[in-house]
Amino acid sequence: MSLDAQAFLEHFNSMSQIGATLGGGVDRQAATIADGQTRHWFRGVAESHGFQVRYDEIGNQYALLELVPGAAWVAVGSHLDSQPTAGRFDGAFGVLAGAFAAARLAKLDGAKFNIAVINWFNEEGSRFKPSMMGSSVFTGKLTVEQALATTDTDGVSVREALEQINGIGDFSLEVAAYVEIHNEQGRALEDAGAQIGLVESTWAAHKYEFTVKGEQAHTGSTMLADRKDALLGAAMLITAAREVALQFSDESGTVVTSCGELYVYPNSPVVVPSEVQMLLDIRATDTDHLEAAVAEFERRVTAAADAANVEFERGVGHSWAAQEYDKRGVALAHAAAEALGLKSMPVRTVAGHDSTNMKDIVPTIMLFVPSVNGISHNEAELTRDEDLVAGVDLLEEVLRRVVRGEYVGAA
Amino acid sequence: MSLDAQAFLEHFNSMSQIGATLGGGVDRQAATIADGQTRHWFRGVAESHGFQVRYDEIGNQYALLELVPGAAWVAVGSHLDSQPTAGRFDGAFGVLAGAFAAARLAKLDGAKFNIAVINWFNEEGSRFKPSMMGSSVFTGKLTVEQALATTDTDGVSVREALEQINGIGDFSLEVAAYVEIHNEQGRALEDAGAQIGLVESTWAAHKYEFTVKGEQAHTGSTMLADRKDALLGAAMLITAAREVALQFSDESGTVVTSCGELYVYPNSPVVVPSEVQMLLDIRATDTDHLEAAVAEFERRVTAAADAANVEFERGVGHSWAAQEYDKRGVALAHAAAEALGLKSMPVRTVAGHDSTNMKDIVPTIMLFVPSVNGISHNEAELTRDEDLVAGVDLLEEVLRRVVRGEYVGAA
Repeated sequence: MSLDAQAFLEHFNSMSQIGATLGGGVDRQAATIADGQTRHWFRGVAESHGFQVRYDEIGNQYALLELVPGAAWVAVGSHLDSQPTAGRFDGAFGVLAGAFAAARLAKLDGAKFNIAVINWFNEEGSRFKPSMMGSSVFTGKLTVEQALATTDTDGVSVREALEQINGIGDFSLEVAAYVEIHNEQGRALEDAGAQIGLVESTWAAHKYEFTVKGEQAHTGSTMLADRKDALLGAAMLITAAREVALQFSDESGTVVTSCGELYVYPNSPVVVPSEVQMLLDIRATDTDHLEAAVAEFERRVTAAADAANVEFERGVGHSWAAQEYDKRGVALAHAAAEALGLKSMPVRTVAGHDSTNMKDIVPTIMLFVPSVNGISHNEAELTRDEDLVAGVDLLEEVLRRVVRGEYVGAA
Repeated sequence: MSLDAQAFLEHFNSMSQIGATLGGGVDRQAATIADGQTRHWFRGVAESHGFQVRYDEIGNQYALLELVPGAAWVAVGSHLDSQPTAGRFDGAFGVLAGAFAAARLAKLDGAKFNIAVINWFNEEGSRFKPSMMGSSVFTGKLTVEQALATTDTDGVSVREALEQINGIGDFSLEVAAYVEIHNEQGRALEDAGAQIGLVESTWAAHKYEFTVKGEQAHTGSTMLADRKDALLGAAMLITAAREVALQFSDESGTVVTSCGELYVYPNSPVVVPSEVQMLLDIRATDTDHLEAAVAEFERRVTAAADAANVEFERGVGHSWAAQEYDKRGVALAHAAAEALGLKSMPVRTVAGHDSTNMKDIVPTIMLFVPSVNGISHNEAELTRDEDLVAGVDLLEEVLRRVVRGEYVGAA
């Protein structure tokens, strides 16, 4: 069976037909029928290439390639689940690239490690929150009980959904190092004309969960002074967040803010909303920019509470500083790219990835390929064929070096 | 059977137990199980007092009291359906008050008309749009086919829902005049210390239906300049509308603006929203204030499209000028209040009522009783017992004069 560039692209296009949307993307939210189909398709591909496929108790899928019986394992992976109406590259590229890179090393001389290709469960977090669920359980940041009990908006639990797609097991694995490749979802590479991004740090972020508390009233007969309009309060936060992002972005760093999810109650045309639930986040290139933006945003929250005559209750919020990836891993990947003649550059990731969990427990290398126009979480997301192929080649070269013991030592 | 004040209050409290919410309100959206129960309870009460109960093809419920066999009919009514988590007075008071007022006139000397008490179907419009559906079909403003085919968010049609509650028929009736009593839902009466409002006009209003068109993107990795954030665009319209309302309210007139209903797509925490659907309205005490506010708001819409880099598509919007109620009806009601020693004052209604439809086809009288603190579309909505009782007494007196031919002549 061929493992060349053409075979990779054909496999990738075949996989992209699962959960395909009319707009050229995919809809494969975690543990849906389409996610289950993709996982089973991937199992078929992996088994055809001699991998053993296993599932752990939170539904992470492992395709295991034993090169050295009894040796320790290194892992490569990403995720096959998607946002609703998402692009087809986000996550899926990294999993299939991992399988191809590993399969190409099946007869590697001098291997010191075995290779596990991991499809992390529910990286996206759109159906079940939080995102990066599978890698969070793997790295001990979330308990498996809590993850399995999480429900979607229809009341279906993760456990039920995983059982329905036949995607849960009792396998477990320790890994000595982790490698992931992903599309950039930004346009730093494209703007610089580079083909490979070497991720050297995450961005800093503060995530808010607000419940805006107002009071139901008649949209016509209630005077403005008597209103406690929860949706007006929410709207003030959203516009304030954007203003703060513009205010604190400068040559030395960038701030972005978003509200992606918002629910209005009772959501009736003639009732002033009494409650809004919303998720809002502020991200910055570095911790200094983040802290300045958050401080100003907090002032704006207080002002909005007065102006809209509402209360902002806070749910679980979390904040993290910019975190570095392992410098030795960046150097190894840079050398591998040089060896292949690929132009690479250091980048930061503003998005979360399973590797941001993994880097906290094992030496981790994170690689990017370009996204055309930086479009992501959108059906129009695109990485060109030549960039996909170069990414698989680089992943193979990085993995070769890792498996030969050039990154972490064999136990 | 007693028809006195005590009996009225007991009946009203009994009715308020149907669809009762923990917060002291009711949830009886149109053609739900709770609405069906309320309609059947009302049928039982009406039949006990000698009314014949019938339904027309859009589910309007008629309790018919024939005083003069073969004579023309006058109607009194309101609606038993409610918003989700609504107050218990809105609409329901007027229907039960109509039945009590009519029943008290069962043996009236000198009657020239028969009396129909009408429970208009779906005045609220929260489950099925548009609002005032039953009276809109009755007055020829909406076709019955269009109304019956309307679906709720679960895809259930009005026809299916009405059939499920056994609330549809083929009755039809022509009426010569219409009277309605309702709680004010504002606080003009309370502020002035008056017990009765004589509605002399509706407010002017402009209703917008916007679809905000943006583009899905990653909330982290997509730069602000590349974003087309539909929710940011929506938030800008909401805050702009409030600013316009404050700007154009003065001593000579008031402007209020609201967005009661808003849906976000795809509504996922890490995706910049690509689409928002929203209903927004601007209301004013008079047409001049409305026109000035609408013109400024339109400028703000254009500016928001630029600032948020989105497009605002418009659905069915409608605009109406302030409309007067029949002056002779206001005078008749004023005289009736004087005769009972009730302090009344002329008021405007900012809310829509079935009477705003009826006034366009027959001479119509609209009466208000006070709402404590003007609270409405809220479980805490309250009209005091003494005001309810005074309202029933006034409605009886107005109806007596109408039935005796003092308002419109018998055919």
